[in-house]
Amino acid sequence: MKENKYDQLAFFEQYGKMDRSQKGLDAAGEWYLLKEMLPDFTGKNVLDLGCGYGWHCRYVMERGAQAVTGVDISEKMLQKASEINLLKGIEYKQVAIEDARFAPEVFDVVFSSLTFHYVQTFDVLLQNIYKWLKPGGCFVFSVEHPVFTAEGKQDWLYDKQGNILHWPVDRYFSEGQRNTTFLGEQVLKYHRTLTTYLNGLLKQGFKLTGVNEPMPDEEMLKNIPEMAGELRRPMMLLIAAEK
Amino acid sequence: MKENKYDQLAFFEQYGKMDRSQKGLDAAGEWYLLKEMLPDFTGKNVLDLGCGYGWHCRYVMERGAQAVTGVDISEKMLQKASEINLLKGIEYKQVAIEDARFAPEVFDVVFSSLTFHYVQTFDVLLQNIYKWLKPGGCFVFSVEHPVFTAEGKQDWLYDKQGNILHWPVDRYFSEGQRNTTFLGEQVLKYHRTLTTYLNGLLKQGFKLTGVNEPMPDEEMLKNIPEMAGELRRPMMLLIAAEK
Repeated sequence: MKENKYDQLAFFEQYGKMDRSQKGLDAAGEWYLLKEMLPDFTGKNVLDLGCGYGWHCRYVMERGAQAVTGVDISEKMLQKASEINLLKGIEYKQVAIEDARFAPEVFDVVFSSLTFHYVQTFDVLLQNIYKWLKPGGCFVFSVEHPVFTAEGKQDWLYDKQGNILHWPVDRYFSEGQRNTTFLGEQVLKYHRTLTTYLNGLLKQGFKLTGVNEPMPDEEMLKNIPEMAGELRRPMMLLIAAEK
Repeated sequence: MKENKYDQLAFFEQYGKMDRSQKGLDAAGEWYLLKEMLPDFTGKNVLDLGCGYGWHCRYVMERGAQAVTGVDISEKMLQKASEINLLKGIEYKQVAIEDARFAPEVFDVVFSSLTFHYVQTFDVLLQNIYKWLKPGGCFVFSVEHPVFTAEGKQDWLYDKQGNILHWPVDRYFSEGQRNTTFLGEQVLKYHRTLTTYLNGLLKQGFKLTGVNEPMPDEEMLKNIPEMAGELRRPMMLLIAAEK
């Protein structure tokens, strides 16, 4: 299902209040680690799948890319991107990731941030990305961690006083739809195992070059006390691969 | 700490009662998947780290290996291995994995089954294995999954009626010692994140060639009803890599 929650006004407004929407990349807890996995962008042709407000597109252009294509299903998101993150060389396209079509071997880098857990068919997507990449091209993406998506409610187990007990994992090998709550709205996500992500890349012909699970750095732990909970379970999975 | 629980009589006897001890590889739920990740052994020089009863050493020799070195810390285990799984070409050595020493580039394959979560220093081990392997050599191993080792008790959360609720994950990014119960005895294991296993291999120079999380196959689910629980959380992680 190609869900486009972001064009529903209430959800879009909630999303707009998140730090990572308003302040850009440095407000995203995983960015310090994700940016280390990115290649040199000088002169590169880059695709950003699920570009949202366009913060990554801007980052890539500012580091010398030749061109960036930002793809997103949401009209409202791309309007916002065009307002705040439109530089020469950036093109925003409104299309569902599943429906995006490009010529073979046109991109040096394909990037995606926290988008693929909304996409139903990962194997078809992998085939396409592999085809669109030039030989030697890089594919870097982040997704919600399988530990985070497995059970479905995406919440801790609490005791009667409201203290966190632990993170529940269940239904790990039952891949597919999870109905969860995000920003006060029902959102449809897709759980996949680690095997599906990593072995899927290997079977498609990619070479894995990096696998990371971000945890808060010392400064975050000092400044935002509730970040300590992020040491208790992995929330995101960052993967880098080469064609 | 180089723990050698297997030379304690009570533990050794309990271990000896496990299906995988008595019946060998086909009684191990993950074997159907792990064996698919192994290379052709014809004419190869193979190292098995934590060889136990020697079932894998025997398997490797029967598939045409030139020689297999089985390493284990436990005298009792190796006695048993010599009784039931000693073929020409197999040599068993009693030594802690951390203390094993071999000449550089002598092995075509390094294998290890469910042993590394007992070893404290994974990075040193990786350096050694990389050094001992010939260029192009294979490294295939299984460990308890980070989801399985994180919290520490290695047990489900149950309701008051004794029904399984879910698997608890906690302390994921706090790597290190876990005191857990196995076969009725306190056992010391080491929890590591997925990042430590996979990125550790990549940083050491290995190329990842396979990542799998075994789940029970249909026959197992039909014959052993409690196996259904194994679909609810990953218990093992199987990794294949090349030098």
